[in-house]
Amino acid sequence: MPGDIRILILNGPNLNLLGTREPGVYGLQTLSDIEDAVRRRAGELSMAVEFLQSNHEGELIDAIQNAGDQANALIVNAGGLTHTSVALADALRAFDGVIVEVHLSNIHAREPFRHHSHVAAVATGSICGFGGHGYILAIEAIHSIVGSPSP
Amino acid sequence: MPGDIRILILNGPNLNLLGTREPGVYGLQTLSDIEDAVRRRAGELSMAVEFLQSNHEGELIDAIQNAGDQANALIVNAGGLTHTSVALADALRAFDGVIVEVHLSNIHAREPFRHHSHVAAVATGSICGFGGHGYILAIEAIHSIVGSPSP
Amino acid sequence: MPGDIRILILNGPNLNLLGTREPGVYGLQTLSDIEDAVRRRAGELSMAVEFLQSNHEGELIDAIQNAGDQANALIVNAGGLTHTSVALADALRAFDGVIVEVHLSNIHAREPFRHHSHVAAVATGSICGFGGHGYILAIEAIHSIVGSPSP
Amino acid sequence: MPGDIRILILNGPNLNLLGTREPGVYGLQTLSDIEDAVRRRAGELSMAVEFLQSNHEGELIDAIQNAGDQANALIVNAGGLTHTSVALADALRAFDGVIVEVHLSNIHAREPFRHHSHVAAVATGSICGFGGHGYILAIEAIHSIVGSPSP
Amino acid sequence: MPGDIRILILNGPNLNLLGTREPGVYGLQTLSDIEDAVRRRAGELSMAVEFLQSNHEGELIDAIQNAGDQANALIVNAGGLTHTSVALADALRAFDGVIVEVHLSNIHAREPFRHHSHVAAVATGSICGFGGHGYILAIEAIHSIVGSPSP
Amino acid sequence: MPGDIRILILNGPNLNLLGTREPGVYGLQTLSDIEDAVRRRAGELSMAVEFLQSNHEGELIDAIQNAGDQANALIVNAGGLTHTSVALADALRAFDGVIVEVHLSNIHAREPFRHHSHVAAVATGSICGFGGHGYILAIEAIHSIVGSPSP
Amino acid sequence: MPGDIRILILNGPNLNLLGTREPGVYGLQTLSDIEDAVRRRAGELSMAVEFLQSNHEGELIDAIQNAGDQANALIVNAGGLTHTSVALADALRAFDGVIVEVHLSNIHAREPFRHHSHVAAVATGSICGFGGHGYILAIEAIHSIVGSPSP
Amino acid sequence: MPGDIRILILNGPNLNLLGTREPGVYGLQTLSDIEDAVRRRAGELSMAVEFLQSNHEGELIDAIQNAGDQANALIVNAGGLTHTSVALADALRAFDGVIVEVHLSNIHAREPFRHHSHVAAVATGSICGFGGHGYILAIEAIHSIVGSPSP
Amino acid sequence: MPGDIRILILNGPNLNLLGTREPGVYGLQTLSDIEDAVRRRAGELSMAVEFLQSNHEGELIDAIQNAGDQANALIVNAGGLTHTSVALADALRAFDGVIVEVHLSNIHAREPFRHHSHVAAVATGSICGFGGHGYILAIEAIHSIVGSPSP
Amino acid sequence: MPGDIRILILNGPNLNLLGTREPGVYGLQTLSDIEDAVRRRAGELSMAVEFLQSNHEGELIDAIQNAGDQANALIVNAGGLTHTSVALADALRAFDGVIVEVHLSNIHAREPFRHHSHVAAVATGSICGFGGHGYILAIEAIHSIVGSPSP
Amino acid sequence: MPGDIRILILNGPNLNLLGTREPGVYGLQTLSDIEDAVRRRAGELSMAVEFLQSNHEGELIDAIQNAGDQANALIVNAGGLTHTSVALADALRAFDGVIVEVHLSNIHAREPFRHHSHVAAVATGSICGFGGHGYILAIEAIHSIVGSPSP
Amino acid sequence: MPGDIRILILNGPNLNLLGTREPGVYGLQTLSDIEDAVRRRAGELSMAVEFLQSNHEGELIDAIQNAGDQANALIVNAGGLTHTSVALADALRAFDGVIVEVHLSNIHAREPFRHHSHVAAVATGSICGFGGHGYILAIEAIHSIVGSPSP
Repeated sequence: MPGDIRILILNGPNLNLLGTREPGVYGLQTLSDIEDAVRRRAGELSMAVEFLQSNHEGELIDAIQNAGDQANALIVNAGGLTHTSVALADALRAFDGVIVEVHLSNIHAREPFRHHSHVAAVATGSICGFGGHGYILAIEAIHSIVGSPSP
Repeated sequence: MPGDIRILILNGPNLNLLGTREPGVYGLQTLSDIEDAVRRRAGELSMAVEFLQSNHEGELIDAIQNAGDQANALIVNAGGLTHTSVALADALRAFDGVIVEVHLSNIHAREPFRHHSHVAAVATGSICGFGGHGYILAIEAIHSIVGSPSP
Repeated sequence: MPGDIRILILNGPNLNLLGTREPGVYGLQTLSDIEDAVRRRAGELSMAVEFLQSNHEGELIDAIQNAGDQANALIVNAGGLTHTSVALADALRAFDGVIVEVHLSNIHAREPFRHHSHVAAVATGSICGFGGHGYILAIEAIHSIVGSPSP
Repeated sequence: MPGDIRILILNGPNLNLLGTREPGVYGLQTLSDIEDAVRRRAGELSMAVEFLQSNHEGELIDAIQNAGDQANALIVNAGGLTHTSVALADALRAFDGVIVEVHLSNIHAREPFRHHSHVAAVATGSICGFGGHGYILAIEAIHSIVGSPSP
Repeated sequence: MPGDIRILILNGPNLNLLGTREPGVYGLQTLSDIEDAVRRRAGELSMAVEFLQSNHEGELIDAIQNAGDQANALIVNAGGLTHTSVALADALRAFDGVIVEVHLSNIHAREPFRHHSHVAAVATGSICGFGGHGYILAIEAIHSIVGSPSP
Repeated sequence: MPGDIRILILNGPNLNLLGTREPGVYGLQTLSDIEDAVRRRAGELSMAVEFLQSNHEGELIDAIQNAGDQANALIVNAGGLTHTSVALADALRAFDGVIVEVHLSNIHAREPFRHHSHVAAVATGSICGFGGHGYILAIEAIHSIVGSPSP
Repeated sequence: MPGDIRILILNGPNLNLLGTREPGVYGLQTLSDIEDAVRRRAGELSMAVEFLQSNHEGELIDAIQNAGDQANALIVNAGGLTHTSVALADALRAFDGVIVEVHLSNIHAREPFRHHSHVAAVATGSICGFGGHGYILAIEAIHSIVGSPSP
Repeated sequence: MPGDIRILILNGPNLNLLGTREPGVYGLQTLSDIEDAVRRRAGELSMAVEFLQSNHEGELIDAIQNAGDQANALIVNAGGLTHTSVALADALRAFDGVIVEVHLSNIHAREPFRHHSHVAAVATGSICGFGGHGYILAIEAIHSIVGSPSP
Repeated sequence: MPGDIRILILNGPNLNLLGTREPGVYGLQTLSDIEDAVRRRAGELSMAVEFLQSNHEGELIDAIQNAGDQANALIVNAGGLTHTSVALADALRAFDGVIVEVHLSNIHAREPFRHHSHVAAVATGSICGFGGHGYILAIEAIHSIVGSPSP
Repeated sequence: MPGDIRILILNGPNLNLLGTREPGVYGLQTLSDIEDAVRRRAGELSMAVEFLQSNHEGELIDAIQNAGDQANALIVNAGGLTHTSVALADALRAFDGVIVEVHLSNIHAREPFRHHSHVAAVATGSICGFGGHGYILAIEAIHSIVGSPSP
Repeated sequence: MPGDIRILILNGPNLNLLGTREPGVYGLQTLSDIEDAVRRRAGELSMAVEFLQSNHEGELIDAIQNAGDQANALIVNAGGLTHTSVALADALRAFDGVIVEVHLSNIHAREPFRHHSHVAAVATGSICGFGGHGYILAIEAIHSIVGSPSP
Repeated sequence: MPGDIRILILNGPNLNLLGTREPGVYGLQTLSDIEDAVRRRAGELSMAVEFLQSNHEGELIDAIQNAGDQANALIVNAGGLTHTSVALADALRAFDGVIVEVHLSNIHAREPFRHHSHVAAVATGSICGFGGHGYILAIEAIHSIVGSPSP
């Protein structure tokens, strides 16, 4: 039931810079603005959310491993690690729950090295190109998946 | 303003088979079930939606070319043409409005030939892996983009 | 039982030109000559056959989708679409019955871009290089598969 | 003799949008402007021209197949199909006459997926990068080829 | 004339294991079952058949070189050598007669390293995916080719 | 204005052999025949032309660098350097005027190593496959570009 | 001499999850079970072992750099970093002693991105596919190498 | 039970040269030295071992096919065939028992063409880089696998 | 003005080992030797320098993100992360100032996997192959860039 | 000294067919004609020659391994094995003497799969394209190498 | 000793255009401006410099071959030949002295065909991206290398 | 007849350095030593030889073009141009006579970029790896080809 949904939202390297870094690509919203909006929407849907941002691959992997105790869904924007980290994807493989990948920009319309995602290969679904609103959509996607009879 | 949003939702080859074709991959919902749900949600958001499904690349291109007169946003699930049609992507390039790509399954977790999308390269954003609910998310994404001050 | 076998034989782009187009590669038999010979052999085996040729990918996909109602086996020579159409192969994936791929020429001994077949990947089996007689062999292959206890 | 030259000019997907679509790339001339200019120049050279534009691969293939009865030369701008359609190139292979490929933009200076042309491989010659004037050059190229003693 | 057709049927490495090896892929029929069926059908068509199975590339090459004296057609299932042996394909290049390639499974729907065939490049035609019945079809293909006026 | 158009026509390695070298590929016209025809047509259009042929990459680069003083358009057939010389293409990048690439044969229908052109990437447009007449078409293309209001 | 052998056993990302993560691939043994078995076997061979597991690339590199003071042999299972970390392999390059790579699963029979190992290129030898027992084999391999006269 | 383990140890091309061939790469131990050591260790573990070395791919395949009757485990060092023989790997696929791949040198640290192994893809596990001692480790690996409750 | 230049010099994984690790490749100078020399030269040019070495990608990214407050130029030797870390390059993309890449060895003359640099793609310039002196050259390069009128 | 030169001349698969197989490619000389000519020339130079032709990779490897006892130079035309056999090249690597590769045809001007030679990588030198005379040249090359002071 | 350093500075194709060609990429400094600055700095360091610019690969190779008599260090900016000329790199291979590669722009951040350098593979070190100042840095790098005890 | 054979021997870039450049790779013989030996051998065979060495691609092409008047056979060692010059190979394509490619070293056993030869693709045959003696073998090869009844 939605009321039981606890979501961990992981943001990887450089996402703490949102609002200042390359605003032409990533927009003016800060990560904290996004977190506020997400928290509000999650509240409306009676879902609990927690946030973690780290520039350290190891911390993200630790968090994914420990997520199983507190969360039954993950939203993951792994930043640049998306395209390079097998270890992070392996951690996600071991997570037993819904995983939604989010990217602020449309990674498929950028440099070729951003077209492949190790995270996508282990996620339930992916949302990219909608800026900070992508996290709201991810929240709603999880709400819909958990509320529907069969995955 | 949302009230002025008219969305054309294009579904490409084989999406008319939804509910019967490979349900293990694509689920049991029919395209008409999805259309009903989308229409309902669009109504709540005061947006108009129209649907077109075709197995013919040319008809889809014709529709995209004519969409400019009646629609200011497109939701496109080009099916197998996603991965092969430069002509369809060229038609989308000429469309002046928001374009959201939707896929029912997580194409990045399937056969390698489904990992590249000509549509993604010209879309505002992409949503994949959430079954029929992906279209609802697309509706909401468009609502959010059009409602926000700058694209 | 063979008596219940109804086969739809689909020929893709340019196969209507048989007998006139590049006879050095494709021979002098016309498509209608081939159809006559196939019909005769199918009759001997008490199988029903129907033919469709189209230069339109969409028409072929429509036909494959509708084939399920009238046919329990397909013979497919997709011509140039063989090597490029994911959409056509996806339609075949949804067909519940035997699929035999036929090519008049030995595609593996021609230009490299003809070596890969999207159709082969979803077919029960493939026959190439025997000119129009390949269709007769396909008829007999289907007869043998349906007549044998387990596929 | 030039007086006997009847040319079919085929334009593929999205070329009907000329003048409105991405004018930075394709210019402001409409397809109809180009047709007028071509008709005028063909008249000066006592050659007959006919035009067909279609967004449907199948219609273009049908037209090429039937061209043999009315035309002895083809000018082909296959748009996005240039880079993907083996079927269309196969139809051209069966045409017995001069084939000139035209592109408005210099496809070799654009995205890598536009650098390869299935049409070029079967054409007598190619002209690209001169906007609508490329069709006039094609007309003159055909005039020169047919007027010269040996091909 | 068919009465003069003498066919050598060569089976390469591991085909002696048929019926026991990976029956999910290759079926339950033994090579000897197939040989019986083939001999029967060849008899009906007044053709002579001889069989050789070997796990040794060199023996197969020896046999192909000597085949010219006794046979005017070859049916070749080179097993795993299909994908790797230039030497075997070179021996086939020197054979003056019809060559039909047979595979029990649909090699195009299996691992990528099974998609390329050195044998296909030198064969008249290929038949794959029909289990042991593929040899019968090959017999009939040869019957048809030799009985027809020009190859 | 056309009257002010001064064109330098550069021919690279081996084009001095025209008429004798591989006439099956390049025709019987000599370079001097082509130059006469070009000069005549340029005269009709009130354009000045100058010719340079060299087998030396460095001489061609020198000529392109100095062309800016005397010419406002270049026609370049770089022969085998087309496919290999970054230095020559860099020289063309620094030229401020129209550049038309010409090839006698249809390079896209020949060996794969002739399909890529460093020159095409920096040219205004390309013309290939029309033998010596390609230079006349290039002259006319330049005439048209310079005569039109905006490039 | 064996009595002087001090081995540092490094386990990379996600190996702390052993016994719970994808048991179908990695088995039911926990990392602590493996450590106990290894310690026992090392004791029998009079060798000292120390263990470190980390999800952090940097910690593993730090440990390898410091290993030189306490250990004269390394056993390394770098998990997902195996396939991606040049930095970790560079740290191993600077280690002056025997390095044995271990993997629980047979990485060569899994996804293609697991077939290449940066660690293998700098290791003395590799052992994979034997589950937790691989570490015991590694212990014995080191025992054998150090006990033998020349490496 | 270990007492019932009968192991066939196959060595492929050139391994009979051990001790003389490129000792810098392969060491000074002869194959017969290795066989003695292996036999001794197998005796200690109450396991039976048999040896076959051949430079002939076909003989190795024959041996693998017949191994099923006498052995329930294989140790395979296929030498240069490791990297090229699909036929040998297919024979191993049909073997019902443990298969351990051994290489004397660390093939992953040598020429690129030695990095891929057709044998690894069908083996239970692989051991490389430990010289002749690798066979002892393989013996012990098999002992451990057969002695453990589930594979 | 030079007096205002504050440079952060970042050294990545394994550069703390300088002087001991593979001296044949990296020389005998320690990192601290280099730092002393750099500090001296920076002092002569009235520039402030700070140093950070870390084996942790995350710490380097943190440092780059915080550098904006204290430094207006970066010198980066990312060690093995040079070739693999998109996340680190993304952090550099967000830095608003001069970035100079340094490598002790000539990475272009080493293993192929060291030829591509994610850092180079976002740096102002690169210096490699001059050992520790490369940092001095980088200091001087920054001095020159900041002292010159336009970047 | 030349008088002590004993050369083993190895011919691989299909070379026994010389004079009959594809004479357009390989000429009309038989292998026995070549052997006579070689023997004559070797006699003039006081060198001993022995010949072995085999279609079996294993026999060729056996012969190379045993060659060390009787021969101090090898001439090798490995036929189709040239391009595929790592095992044969490994055997040559262990031969301590001059190795000359010979091919009758110019393999570099044929199909791409004939451009790479595993034999060339281990040979002293290669001679191709001179038909049977290539063996005479190889004899003379060996004569020259052995007669010169340092290799 | 520095006083004995005589440096030849070679500039390849199009570098004579500096200051006029694509100033957005290469800046406004002319080659003569750079030469003046280099000469001044070399004078301060008591080093002799000589300059050669040529658009001709052969002249550059001649100069490198003759450099050995007058120079003991080379600075090479080979322009477009950097990426294509094996012959030039071979000439550098034969030069016995320090070689420093310079590029005005950051070639690693430009088109992919500029990422590979034949010169880099034979140079002592490379400097790119610092405009004309790169030559000054190269002068100083040579000064440092020659002044240090061991290269 | 041999008496009429006039051979032009072309040596490309850096071959004038023979005897001094990388003697470990190319030996101690100078080009002039080789020319003397070749002249002597040619004299014995009543053949005329002429020599040209140039570091300039253009001069080599000029010489090949003019060779037709004075020579009926070419021996070509194009040095580094071997691997890069389409223009030089095109010049050779236009030469009507025997062309023998020579390389001093075994290019197939060196860096990968030396494995492909544009010259080989147009030569009658190739000889590599025999140092200066390769030219003598080339002389003899030409003698044999011209003396034999059919090419």
